[in-house]
Amino acid sequence: MSSGKKTRPAKGKGRRKLGVWILGARGGLATTMMCGARAIARGLSPSTGLLTESPMFEGFDYPDLGDLVFGGHDIRKSSTREAALEIYHDSGAIDRELIDALEPDFKDFDKEVRLGAAPNAGKAILAIADEEVRQDERSLREITDSIQEAIRSFKKRKGLDRVVVVNLMSTEAPLKPGPAQRSRKALERALDQDKKRQIRPSQLYAYASAMEGCPFIHFTPSNATLADSVMECFEDQGLPYMGSDGKTGETLVKSALAPMFKYRNLRVRSWLGYNLLGDRDGVILNNPDNKSSKVLTKDSLLAGILGYPLHTHVGIDYVPSLGDMKTAWDFIHFEGFLGFRMCMQFTWQGCDSILAAPLVLDMLRLADHAATRGKKGPMKHLACFFKRPIGIQEDDLHMQWHMLERYAKEEKSSLLKNK
Amino acid sequence: MSSGKKTRPAKGKGRRKLGVWILGARGGLATTMMCGARAIARGLSPSTGLLTESPMFEGFDYPDLGDLVFGGHDIRKSSTREAALEIYHDSGAIDRELIDALEPDFKDFDKEVRLGAAPNAGKAILAIADEEVRQDERSLREITDSIQEAIRSFKKRKGLDRVVVVNLMSTEAPLKPGPAQRSRKALERALDQDKKRQIRPSQLYAYASAMEGCPFIHFTPSNATLADSVMECFEDQGLPYMGSDGKTGETLVKSALAPMFKYRNLRVRSWLGYNLLGDRDGVILNNPDNKSSKVLTKDSLLAGILGYPLHTHVGIDYVPSLGDMKTAWDFIHFEGFLGFRMCMQFTWQGCDSILAAPLVLDMLRLADHAATRGKKGPMKHLACFFKRPIGIQEDDLHMQWHMLERYAKEEKSSLLKNK
Amino acid sequence: MSSGKKTRPAKGKGRRKLGVWILGARGGLATTMMCGARAIARGLSPSTGLLTESPMFEGFDYPDLGDLVFGGHDIRKSSTREAALEIYHDSGAIDRELIDALEPDFKDFDKEVRLGAAPNAGKAILAIADEEVRQDERSLREITDSIQEAIRSFKKRKGLDRVVVVNLMSTEAPLKPGPAQRSRKALERALDQDKKRQIRPSQLYAYASAMEGCPFIHFTPSNATLADSVMECFEDQGLPYMGSDGKTGETLVKSALAPMFKYRNLRVRSWLGYNLLGDRDGVILNNPDNKSSKVLTKDSLLAGILGYPLHTHVGIDYVPSLGDMKTAWDFIHFEGFLGFRMCMQFTWQGCDSILAAPLVLDMLRLADHAATRGKKGPMKHLACFFKRPIGIQEDDLHMQWHMLERYAKEEKSSLLKNK
Amino acid sequence: MSSGKKTRPAKGKGRRKLGVWILGARGGLATTMMCGARAIARGLSPSTGLLTESPMFEGFDYPDLGDLVFGGHDIRKSSTREAALEIYHDSGAIDRELIDALEPDFKDFDKEVRLGAAPNAGKAILAIADEEVRQDERSLREITDSIQEAIRSFKKRKGLDRVVVVNLMSTEAPLKPGPAQRSRKALERALDQDKKRQIRPSQLYAYASAMEGCPFIHFTPSNATLADSVMECFEDQGLPYMGSDGKTGETLVKSALAPMFKYRNLRVRSWLGYNLLGDRDGVILNNPDNKSSKVLTKDSLLAGILGYPLHTHVGIDYVPSLGDMKTAWDFIHFEGFLGFRMCMQFTWQGCDSILAAPLVLDMLRLADHAATRGKKGPMKHLACFFKRPIGIQEDDLHMQWHMLERYAKEEKSSLLKNK
Repeated sequence: MSSGKKTRPAKGKGRRKLGVWILGARGGLATTMMCGARAIARGLSPSTGLLTESPMFEGFDYPDLGDLVFGGHDIRKSSTREAALEIYHDSGAIDRELIDALEPDFKDFDKEVRLGAAPNAGKAILAIADEEVRQDERSLREITDSIQEAIRSFKKRKGLDRVVVVNLMSTEAPLKPGPAQRSRKALERALDQDKKRQIRPSQLYAYASAMEGCPFIHFTPSNATLADSVMECFEDQGLPYMGSDGKTGETLVKSALAPMFKYRNLRVRSWLGYNLLGDRDGVILNNPDNKSSKVLTKDSLLAGILGYPLHTHVGIDYVPSLGDMKTAWDFIHFEGFLGFRMCMQFTWQGCDSILAAPLVLDMLRLADHAATRGKKGPMKHLACFFKRPIGIQEDDLHMQWHMLERYAKEEKSSLLKNK
Repeated sequence: MSSGKKTRPAKGKGRRKLGVWILGARGGLATTMMCGARAIARGLSPSTGLLTESPMFEGFDYPDLGDLVFGGHDIRKSSTREAALEIYHDSGAIDRELIDALEPDFKDFDKEVRLGAAPNAGKAILAIADEEVRQDERSLREITDSIQEAIRSFKKRKGLDRVVVVNLMSTEAPLKPGPAQRSRKALERALDQDKKRQIRPSQLYAYASAMEGCPFIHFTPSNATLADSVMECFEDQGLPYMGSDGKTGETLVKSALAPMFKYRNLRVRSWLGYNLLGDRDGVILNNPDNKSSKVLTKDSLLAGILGYPLHTHVGIDYVPSLGDMKTAWDFIHFEGFLGFRMCMQFTWQGCDSILAAPLVLDMLRLADHAATRGKKGPMKHLACFFKRPIGIQEDDLHMQWHMLERYAKEEKSSLLKNK
Repeated sequence: MSSGKKTRPAKGKGRRKLGVWILGARGGLATTMMCGARAIARGLSPSTGLLTESPMFEGFDYPDLGDLVFGGHDIRKSSTREAALEIYHDSGAIDRELIDALEPDFKDFDKEVRLGAAPNAGKAILAIADEEVRQDERSLREITDSIQEAIRSFKKRKGLDRVVVVNLMSTEAPLKPGPAQRSRKALERALDQDKKRQIRPSQLYAYASAMEGCPFIHFTPSNATLADSVMECFEDQGLPYMGSDGKTGETLVKSALAPMFKYRNLRVRSWLGYNLLGDRDGVILNNPDNKSSKVLTKDSLLAGILGYPLHTHVGIDYVPSLGDMKTAWDFIHFEGFLGFRMCMQFTWQGCDSILAAPLVLDMLRLADHAATRGKKGPMKHLACFFKRPIGIQEDDLHMQWHMLERYAKEEKSSLLKNK
Repeated sequence: MSSGKKTRPAKGKGRRKLGVWILGARGGLATTMMCGARAIARGLSPSTGLLTESPMFEGFDYPDLGDLVFGGHDIRKSSTREAALEIYHDSGAIDRELIDALEPDFKDFDKEVRLGAAPNAGKAILAIADEEVRQDERSLREITDSIQEAIRSFKKRKGLDRVVVVNLMSTEAPLKPGPAQRSRKALERALDQDKKRQIRPSQLYAYASAMEGCPFIHFTPSNATLADSVMECFEDQGLPYMGSDGKTGETLVKSALAPMFKYRNLRVRSWLGYNLLGDRDGVILNNPDNKSSKVLTKDSLLAGILGYPLHTHVGIDYVPSLGDMKTAWDFIHFEGFLGFRMCMQFTWQGCDSILAAPLVLDMLRLADHAATRGKKGPMKHLACFFKRPIGIQEDDLHMQWHMLERYAKEEKSSLLKNK
């Protein structure tokens, strides 16, 4: 089950250490990402899936995979070994033998995982939270202070050059935007006055990250995380960030295929997509509130790419037996010359955390790169990694890719010049 | 079965008339193309499938669809009505009511179709040829002279500004390239010495087209048609041309999808494609010799796009009941992070002539445009229409598309300047 | 688009004429069935799809297809030609040339179609009904009387030996069973007291059919049609009947495939089915109330066949561009030896009325056969034609088939004996 | 990855021990079968996939799974642990943790595996054989004697009540039947005269099994194994046997689905099936000679079930990356009422050895049952397990199943009577 090229050898120069603070540290994606980074660093796995280990980013000075240090928050208590064994028994995505080999790394990580907070998280999420989290009665300010303290202490104890924060928590139900989503001032007022109904947990974490000077990657569709008020904080602090909702499966294929119909002036009449998934993500998305966040980001891109309205539908169904092996079927009904109707269908069978983990690692390193170069605001060149890229109206995967490619080339030549 | 926008109204200016000389004039593709051009010109059908009727090419001065005049050669005797009814009964791609409405157009076309020649065409093709063609004992020079004469007379009688020739004949068995494929001099010597074994029929037609000053579109995979020797003739005559093998179905999807795997650094291990088709094309391709031409062009592009060798297979099976409703199934097995294997599959169900016809029309008009502007040589900007674009090493559909888009923009601004 | 064997020549004996009274006479299924019966009788089409024209039922003395006489009710005004052209333009299921050839038959049929009634039919159905139907303020008894009168007059005017009634109307929203569904007495009381809220239109038609001595086929899932009270009427009248919900597409495949998993003791964990359809049926089923009738009948059979509970889901989505070309995708996730998980998926692309029409014709003739032999009650041997066969707990298609086969053999030998 | 009910507890009575002599003992199927039998016996795995552990065969007195003792021949040297690890790394079909748990069982088995012989086995098979096997110059009689001796010694050393032999070796190229395939006498003459070209290895093993009084299961398509001459030997010895070619994947589905089209009098015009597989079986089948054996058995059953000729094609392609996860795509094009064409397709993704192993175990026990009851000749009630059941013309899976069900019932009641 393994092949391909091994990671490049450690560079000789003064090495930088990058902290990775994971929101949702006990989840399957966090576990897979951490395992993968360590496995590649130890030469136990190929670097398939990672662009930042490919020639495309050769010469970039972000830290080696072996120089990433992991920590984070979660609302469930567990251990990395337990999480990894669950993945092994579910999809086999993490090899049984690898789990034994990474035992010491698991222990290191476990020491850096803190219990999180879930004020106004909604029923679906609280249902899977630890009792202690559900009993938590701290004020919003007490919570943000403790998050900031956790990140600060992590950075200091581990001697990290920088900490990047990534949101891998379960999808929250959408929050109807109020003042606390619109301006930093209103947000801070809501925090000071402990208005729990006006925020979602992910917003607290994002705020705390900004306050601690951490670049931020928002990998889920939750709409409160990078609300305008939060982005204002990142801008004020001069920090780069990006989101939202990682593009890993059916939507990825959609955004790769839809342009083809445009190139041929074929008229797509209907495009239906059905997603079956069975992991913890699926349990949460089985709740109609939480699902609505997801469907929204998945459904909007076709008309954007094609340039006209069409009949679309995105279904998400929870199928426990599938675990993390997400299966999607898309049916595309289109019209060609003489108005003749034809169709295409595809089935995608992918392991979500396996597809997502390398994207997150790539972005963490590229966020570090941007921060080192003093860039702030949305990292639009990362658009190809997201279902709803912030600050950019482009859903065509190929156009998004060309942006990243151009970015890589320009940065490379600027790196060469500065040598 | 019809919808979409109607063709734009006839332009007021001094209109040009473009002759379209079709090799394979009795085939389903020729019939569909001719029907479609007339139906759109008469406002009976939307222009779906055509780029040259879309805003992308607004302002170009190629002739209106109503100013295309059709003629051509075929080795079978038939009538357009008969061919159109066959399509109606097979796939329904040409509407029964349209056939009645276009009766006068069919008659015009029928008057301009000549019986063709098939020296050294091979068993599979001769099997479907008219008795007269099989008995034909003319020398190669007599044949090319008669082709040239047919085109010349067509142009004169119809008062055409230009004639463009398009090869829509059945796929020939590959010809092992000899001197007659390498240089014009050797080709003309072979013609003079009547060396029938050294050429294929399509090469004669292409040679005659060049001699008559006609731009040329090579829409099939036959390797003799645009051999080096023939391209030399077109260059000598200062003519534009392009080929080969129209990209309409499974290969189109392949070249749209494969880049996605590259963007994610996913390693494709196996990509199998099975094509089922049942029309006359299928009968010919059922012959192993003729099939080998096709598989070659279909199979080569994946490694090119992905940048590494992989296990591929392209199957073509003749399934009479399908008629022209080509059905293809592709299975893609790929490896991601941690070497984990996943898969994707798609089924494409498209009517080949419906997909191909608008491409041909687009290219005929763009060939006219190029000739008017005095361009010669391969029209590389048409790469996205071909499985094996001549003169260019790019199989990624999106890169090809961007070339066409750039071309359209540049020509447009040059047209505006020259006004 | 046509082939196969032609119908058998008319039999020499004293021919019987069978009236077919169609509820939903303007629908696509009614139109297809009528066209097909006439086309086969006239030798214009093969009898594919019909069992009663196959050797299986050789020797049965039900009327020839040419001796069926059609009439019925509908809540929309239209003409058969219009309905047939709509089908031609939608799916091509009725050939354009056939429509012209059957012009006289269409006229005959049109004369025998009456405007129906729709008391308490629900919003979705009333939305497609004729204005006159919506304004209809007749009492329930006035309605049933007029239905009975229509059938009686049809029988008399046409000199029919028997009239069989078939329900092909749109699926009604389920009616919570009350007294009028439980006993004939309560039903007749509701009619007398004009309690419109206690019945559905289809129940009135079924009641009227029983009162007129007509065998009845209930081809839709509407739960009021053959309520206990109505079945009591048929029993009292000594009439055969059967229902409900014709098994034509995805459910047919399901009931054919599910036993395979049982034969191998493979444990099906999840079976998801998604149905896309776009005809008038689809519009009605797009209404959640009406859809609930359908999903119920489609979803219940898997656990029955397999013998254990499993995760199932049946989706029905309205996709206008598909018209009557129903497309369904099923995904089956199952466990084998050592608990290992595997999967199977299928895509079904069938034209619903083409699949249903011959089933209806078969059952009309077999209902006539049963009535002639003095059989009353549910015709259990027709179970294989229904999603929810009345009076029998067997969903395995093969067991159902064997019942029909046995019936055919037994009847045949009894017919031979009686000669 | 595991669930379901555990095996029944060991029975209290005087237990019988059944020897299982596996031809192809180092293969994936043998390894999976042995692992599974031991895992279920030890309560480590559910008995999913086995009919002989289901209520259907309750009361039968064949040995418990824990009372099966395994041994066999192979032409490759290896160890069970090695073979099991290969499966774990390939498909994950054998759990990593199970491998450690079964270590002692593996050792027992390894002691009972002997190096086999491969006279006239053909290039593809010799290519994977051990050097010692390739150098083997023993006469045919020396070989059969050594096989018989190995079985006899196994039985004696292990104190077995009976030994059943099962052929799980790679598919041999078909042997054009000669005298040695036609009669026992000619076969024995060929053995005596050492005519190696006239036999295949599997024939030697089968002959030796008959001579040692062992019932025989022929699970592959090789045509020499149970040639008429060999069946004569089994009949002479009064032994039961059955074959050939286990029905586990695409053909299983085919034989379950095809009857559905018959039930509806739908006319199947084309049925194409493509099988992709990547294990050792695939390597061998990649050889055209060996493949021809397989295609023959897979392709013949449709016309038999449907009762008319149709266009079929069975493709088998070797796709190394798939390993044992066989993937098949079938496309079915059929005609319904009014000659209208529709289609269905399915994709089957199954692990071949996981699907096959329980069938083999079931048949071994039922062969023991038959032998105990003194039955000889082909066990026709096992038809549903084979692509080409010996001695019976029935390819409909459901008819085959009903035969097995009837057999189980009859035997059960006879067992009860004899108590």
